[in-house]
Amino acid sequence: MTPCVHTLWQDLISIRETTPLIHNITNYVVMNNTANALLALGASPVMAHALNEVEEMVNLAAALVINIGTLNDDWIAAMETAMLFAKQQKKPIIFDPVGAGATNYRTETTRKLLNIATPTVIRGNASEIAAISNQNITTKGVDSTQDSQTVVRVAQTLANLYQCTIVISGAVDFIVSKERIFQIKNGHPLMTKVTGMGCTATALTGAFLAVNSDATIAATHAIAVMGIAGEIAAEKSAGPGTLQLNFLDALYNLKAEDIANRLKLTQFNY
Amino acid sequence: MTPCVHTLWQDLISIRETTPLIHNITNYVVMNNTANALLALGASPVMAHALNEVEEMVNLAAALVINIGTLNDDWIAAMETAMLFAKQQKKPIIFDPVGAGATNYRTETTRKLLNIATPTVIRGNASEIAAISNQNITTKGVDSTQDSQTVVRVAQTLANLYQCTIVISGAVDFIVSKERIFQIKNGHPLMTKVTGMGCTATALTGAFLAVNSDATIAATHAIAVMGIAGEIAAEKSAGPGTLQLNFLDALYNLKAEDIANRLKLTQFNY
Amino acid sequence: MTPCVHTLWQDLISIRETTPLIHNITNYVVMNNTANALLALGASPVMAHALNEVEEMVNLAAALVINIGTLNDDWIAAMETAMLFAKQQKKPIIFDPVGAGATNYRTETTRKLLNIATPTVIRGNASEIAAISNQNITTKGVDSTQDSQTVVRVAQTLANLYQCTIVISGAVDFIVSKERIFQIKNGHPLMTKVTGMGCTATALTGAFLAVNSDATIAATHAIAVMGIAGEIAAEKSAGPGTLQLNFLDALYNLKAEDIANRLKLTQFNY
Repeated sequence: MTPCVHTLWQDLISIRETTPLIHNITNYVVMNNTANALLALGASPVMAHALNEVEEMVNLAAALVINIGTLNDDWIAAMETAMLFAKQQKKPIIFDPVGAGATNYRTETTRKLLNIATPTVIRGNASEIAAISNQNITTKGVDSTQDSQTVVRVAQTLANLYQCTIVISGAVDFIVSKERIFQIKNGHPLMTKVTGMGCTATALTGAFLAVNSDATIAATHAIAVMGIAGEIAAEKSAGPGTLQLNFLDALYNLKAEDIANRLKLTQFNY
Repeated sequence: MTPCVHTLWQDLISIRETTPLIHNITNYVVMNNTANALLALGASPVMAHALNEVEEMVNLAAALVINIGTLNDDWIAAMETAMLFAKQQKKPIIFDPVGAGATNYRTETTRKLLNIATPTVIRGNASEIAAISNQNITTKGVDSTQDSQTVVRVAQTLANLYQCTIVISGAVDFIVSKERIFQIKNGHPLMTKVTGMGCTATALTGAFLAVNSDATIAATHAIAVMGIAGEIAAEKSAGPGTLQLNFLDALYNLKAEDIANRLKLTQFNY
Repeated sequence: MTPCVHTLWQDLISIRETTPLIHNITNYVVMNNTANALLALGASPVMAHALNEVEEMVNLAAALVINIGTLNDDWIAAMETAMLFAKQQKKPIIFDPVGAGATNYRTETTRKLLNIATPTVIRGNASEIAAISNQNITTKGVDSTQDSQTVVRVAQTLANLYQCTIVISGAVDFIVSKERIFQIKNGHPLMTKVTGMGCTATALTGAFLAVNSDATIAATHAIAVMGIAGEIAAEKSAGPGTLQLNFLDALYNLKAEDIANRLKLTQFNY
């Protein structure tokens, strides 16, 4: 299967029709945006982080989204339990290593969680993906500082090591598995001025994983939808404030022709 | 007293003039929306969840809003203490059992808290209200899956058991006490695509409880205001993103004629 | 140095060019707004509250923002460690005593933290500043209830005691050091109907402290930018909902002539 306008649209229809429940253990900053983006896409979000209920919630959900943006030890324990249970139940996991490389706590937590239960997809910016790969790169908070092209090779190594799909977000997005590389050139620079747009991309990927068992294609679809909705929104927005809401409107109103007219997807050979 | 355009408007004026302090122990996802909705209505919101301060805050507040959307054990302890103290101080309590029925943790926490200190009003969707009543219904996250009409009977049983007012939100809203049933047909389907609209209804009910000692009437007013502001907002909105903010604007600008022109309120006999 | 249109613009350019990393340990309600306001201004926000990583994050950051809006004991411990480390590293600290005076927990935590590591700037409303100064004033939640003029004297005492800059927000804002008093008359009443506008002012002050070592001037610039962006936004907004996003757009698009045309800054002599 190759991702294209048609496959993307099929997945989007499928999300809108089946409203898959997406379980998020995510950071405080973006919880509201994440939930609203999943609703606008057509999915059904739930947030639950108590050790007492994460297994039960994973059991109800069609995919698990893990995001380490505002960690502490209790949350890590819940993530660990939820991820282990999701693996056991063969539910897709999407992991967002927010700020990996910025502090040892985040880098080590990421490595620990990846070793306990490998996600289906890992999505981050170039610095975060580099940090997980144990490259000597220092990141400054949550911004991308590395050239994406260089890091694609790191992503390939990581994809091989964990047998999963790696998404590197940036001005150009790369979706990398051990066999395939897709590139998405959608999106708009103003999106970098809204907090949590990366976290939203992660959450949307969860929804696509819920309806498409080919994780690399599902992730490519999610990243394309993110970029296309962002473009449409940015064209109507006077700044990052209004962009945030126009983005949700665009996601909600996304039509087959928007995808057909805008999708900038390229497949590369290994 | 019967709820009508006039009584609703009187309560709204009263909230705007006295700006009652509403103490919220609520979930991470909706805290910002809840606070902004209370401000737009004319009330004064405060969030405080530390065991060390909840009693003092309840003491300052005119009503207590409890919402279990993102629970853990520490928060439950704070809710317990705050609810017990509110009962002792005869302050109204409004309780939102988010996701009750989805996990045992939520269902059991809800039952435990209701038994410790019965709220003045309980507001949820049909699935959540059914779950509290120990009906064998499984809910899928935070969405309503039961026909409201059927659940009204469950609400009546619950209203009798706890001697409180039950609000069931849905396409049609029901406000049920052991003596009365009110139905509100305001609102708009797009509201279901914004996270936390139910939680906002709960918080607004807190504000009306602060100015009206007849809890069933207060809850009916709150639910009507919620629906009317939602309608006005939806008519101006291109999607769920802009709806969220147009809703706050509509709440802030709500006029007597908006209520007069739009209120769809029916009382049923037992 | 005296703050003026020129110095303000220079600082704003400097923030936009150097995108200083601002480390926030703040409350759940406003995290999203705070992050977005810092991004719209041109800075780079990060939220981190785990004891395991706060020192490392302070080390990466150009300024530390502490806000006690939704406290508990774990968060206080992290604030303490972060503030001590920031002092040691000579990084500016801006402190927001949200709700000080409303509960003993908040008042005592504020005093404790101020004594452990004096901030560079403390920003609050009149009631909060009065409460820190041990005046017998009771505040009602997070709203200002005292006449700002009276509290300026309290601020002067506090500025002398802690050798820091005090900002009192209100219809008129005062920035007070032991040597200087600046007054800003920008802003709009509708801003009080959006939650966390004070917290946003605190966060923006962090960004200005990162680029200007004269803390009183930096704070004056931040408060002026806050008020000017708020005015521009309010003029375009139908209510508090849209104001929130128009504010971010205004901040992002702020031009030298906006500052030149609108700045209402007065210096008073002691």
